[in-house]
Amino acid sequence: MPKYQSFESILDNQVMIPKKLLCDYIKLGLKETELMVLIQIHRFRTEGNLFPTPDDLADHLSISGQECSQVLRRLIQKQMLTIEQKHNEDQVLNECYSLEPLWEKLYTYTPVQKPKTQEFNE
Amino acid sequence: MPKYQSFESILDNQVMIPKKLLCDYIKLGLKETELMVLIQIHRFRTEGNLFPTPDDLADHLSISGQECSQVLRRLIQKQMLTIEQKHNEDQVLNECYSLEPLWEKLYTYTPVQKPKTQEFNE
Amino acid sequence: MPKYQSFESILDNQVMIPKKLLCDYIKLGLKETELMVLIQIHRFRTEGNLFPTPDDLADHLSISGQECSQVLRRLIQKQMLTIEQKHNEDQVLNECYSLEPLWEKLYTYTPVQKPKTQEFNE
Amino acid sequence: MPKYQSFESILDNQVMIPKKLLCDYIKLGLKETELMVLIQIHRFRTEGNLFPTPDDLADHLSISGQECSQVLRRLIQKQMLTIEQKHNEDQVLNECYSLEPLWEKLYTYTPVQKPKTQEFNE
Repeated sequence: MPKYQSFESILDNQVMIPKKLLCDYIKLGLKETELMVLIQIHRFRTEGNLFPTPDDLADHLSISGQECSQVLRRLIQKQMLTIEQKHNEDQVLNECYSLEPLWEKLYTYTPVQKPKTQEFNE
Repeated sequence: MPKYQSFESILDNQVMIPKKLLCDYIKLGLKETELMVLIQIHRFRTEGNLFPTPDDLADHLSISGQECSQVLRRLIQKQMLTIEQKHNEDQVLNECYSLEPLWEKLYTYTPVQKPKTQEFNE
Repeated sequence: MPKYQSFESILDNQVMIPKKLLCDYIKLGLKETELMVLIQIHRFRTEGNLFPTPDDLADHLSISGQECSQVLRRLIQKQMLTIEQKHNEDQVLNECYSLEPLWEKLYTYTPVQKPKTQEFNE
Repeated sequence: MPKYQSFESILDNQVMIPKKLLCDYIKLGLKETELMVLIQIHRFRTEGNLFPTPDDLADHLSISGQECSQVLRRLIQKQMLTIEQKHNEDQVLNECYSLEPLWEKLYTYTPVQKPKTQEFNE
């Protein structure tokens, strides 16, 4: 193991992802890019950024900020994601993403047969 | 929070993913589907399956087992993944995937400018 | 960072502990040794051992197996832990620990003032 | 599962602890209270507080702030913990705890026989 990274920085920088999300995102009708948008939102949360912009997200995705906006809209339509409004300590109204609809779907989901998609073309 | 899941099953079923992987897979030249193949291999490891078949993996991906085989070959070529041979306790030779090349790249990587890809078309 | 450990073995061997448990075990009336018995049971679960013996647990604690048995009894009395019986795939009845009572207490707990204990003497 | 906690708050609030720390702290000569001081420092890090006071720590331990100061001194003497000085973005010199000595010991440790302690009396 090369010496460029401290153990501390490895241990401090992990994100927990529910196995069920990795196992069942296909059953929820999600594709890999949509899943990664959700996972990036989850990662930004752990870093204290509750409302990353489409460009923030696209910096860590293979899609552009504009395409990311479309994915975000689709995820909100599919009810995987909501935008919530919260007053911060200075009584300023802030928006933030909530993944609670995703976790609720996931943890209360009754699995059905996998709808194998054909759209992968590279 | 609906009552269908125990806290225990939620807590017992999480996978840790390095933030650096989520932040930098694009810089490593990976696309979302390739990333998800690597993450699924990582998840199978945590469940004790060190050598899932392409079909095992494809069951949790939007691609077919055959397409998954191609991705696996590409990941081995890109040196993100290796296949190792290990003797088990009965001296039977077993194969398993190792993600060590990926973690080494990731944790010893010097970031360069993001090569923004254009190939996202849906 | 010395070279004795692979990144893979570091990443594969982490246990997730709810922050609330670390923050609030004192409020739940637990001491450090009791907490560590619960955490060791949680760790054994993640390794597939659902019913470690008091000696298994004591191997990773500063107390003896006999003292560990007493702690286990106390934790069951305090309703932090239960022993459940489950049929395995061969219809053999197996016992296992469940930490669900702990997680329920933790995640539904209304915090009260910290009962500062005085019994620490070294 | 009672309805008082969102899935999101459960998923967002976990701390990763290396299994090796839970397995081997006894071998490293640590007792449960010392371990918990280290784990609380690790938890505070994940929340962005790199230099919690002894009283901050003691609020989540069964010991007083004064006793916690003694434990901290002992952990520094045992070389499990160091205090580092860092310039922040405003060029102010800040102190922070580093657990790197602990992780190095842990991940490069050659296990010896467990020195079973007798000091547990309740």
